[in-house]
Amino acid sequence: MSTVPCVFCDIVAGRGPAHLVYSDEHVVAFLDRAPVTRGHTLVIPRKHSSGLSDLDPALGTPLFAAAQRIADAMKTLEFGAHGVNLAVNDGRAAMQTVFHTHLHVVPRRVGDKLSFATGLVTRRAGDLATTAAHLRSLIGDRT
Amino acid sequence: MSTVPCVFCDIVAGRGPAHLVYSDEHVVAFLDRAPVTRGHTLVIPRKHSSGLSDLDPALGTPLFAAAQRIADAMKTLEFGAHGVNLAVNDGRAAMQTVFHTHLHVVPRRVGDKLSFATGLVTRRAGDLATTAAHLRSLIGDRT
Repeated sequence: MSTVPCVFCDIVAGRGPAHLVYSDEHVVAFLDRAPVTRGHTLVIPRKHSSGLSDLDPALGTPLFAAAQRIADAMKTLEFGAHGVNLAVNDGRAAMQTVFHTHLHVVPRRVGDKLSFATGLVTRRAGDLATTAAHLRSLIGDRT
Repeated sequence: MSTVPCVFCDIVAGRGPAHLVYSDEHVVAFLDRAPVTRGHTLVIPRKHSSGLSDLDPALGTPLFAAAQRIADAMKTLEFGAHGVNLAVNDGRAAMQTVFHTHLHVVPRRVGDKLSFATGLVTRRAGDLATTAAHLRSLIGDRT
C-alpha cells in the first residue's frame, strides 16, 4: 500500500474496478483499460513500489511466473496469440504513466505489426469483460 | 547450454564476442550489437531457454535484480538516462530474433521519442566498447 492515493493499490485492495485475469499472494493481473492488442494485461505486485528502483527484486520471480502463466494462456489455440511482448516502462521518459510498478503482457500474432503499431496510438478498449473471462477460463480461474 | 548452436550460450561460455556490462552466477549482461538507444543492454540467464515458456521462473529474480542494477547505473547523472524500458520479446510474432531468453534494458531520455523511434528502425551500433566500459565503471565492474 502506498501512503499516497494509487489507482493500482486500490485495485489490489478490491476498491478499484478492474477486469481481473489472475491473482496470487504476491501479484494481481488485470486487463489494461486501453489495450495495445486484445488481451493486453498488466501484472502488478500487491506491495506498492513506484518503479524499478524501489521494487523488491524478490518480486521478479512472482512477476515472471504470473506473466508466464498468462502468456501460456494467450498462446493457446483458443486465444490465438503466437507470441507476447513483456515490458516495464520505468520513468516518465520511458512512457510510465501509473507510478505503481507494472509488467505489460501484450499478446501478438504473426503479421500484426500494422495493427500493433495502430494499437500503440489508438489504444481502444473493446469488450474487456469478455476478454478477461476468456483468459481467466484458460488460466484456470485464480482471481 | 543448448544442444544446438546458440550465439548467446557462446557468450555465456566466453567463446562469443560481447561487450560485457555485468555478470553474476545466474545471468550475463552485454550490449545489444544493434542498439535502439546508446547503452541498450541484454540480460540473459546463463542457463539456456528458448523463450518464456521454458524459462525457469526462479530466474525472474536474478533477471530483474540485474536489470535494476544496470538501470540504476544508466540513471546516474554520469550516464544521463531518465528512465528505462525493459522488454522480453517472446516468439517470432513478438519480434524475438535470438532464441535464448533475453531481457532488453533500453535507456531513455526526456524528449527522445523521435530518436527512439528512429533507433528502432536504424539500430546503429556506435562505440560499443566505450559505452560498455562506462556502464561497467558505474555498476562496479562485475564481469
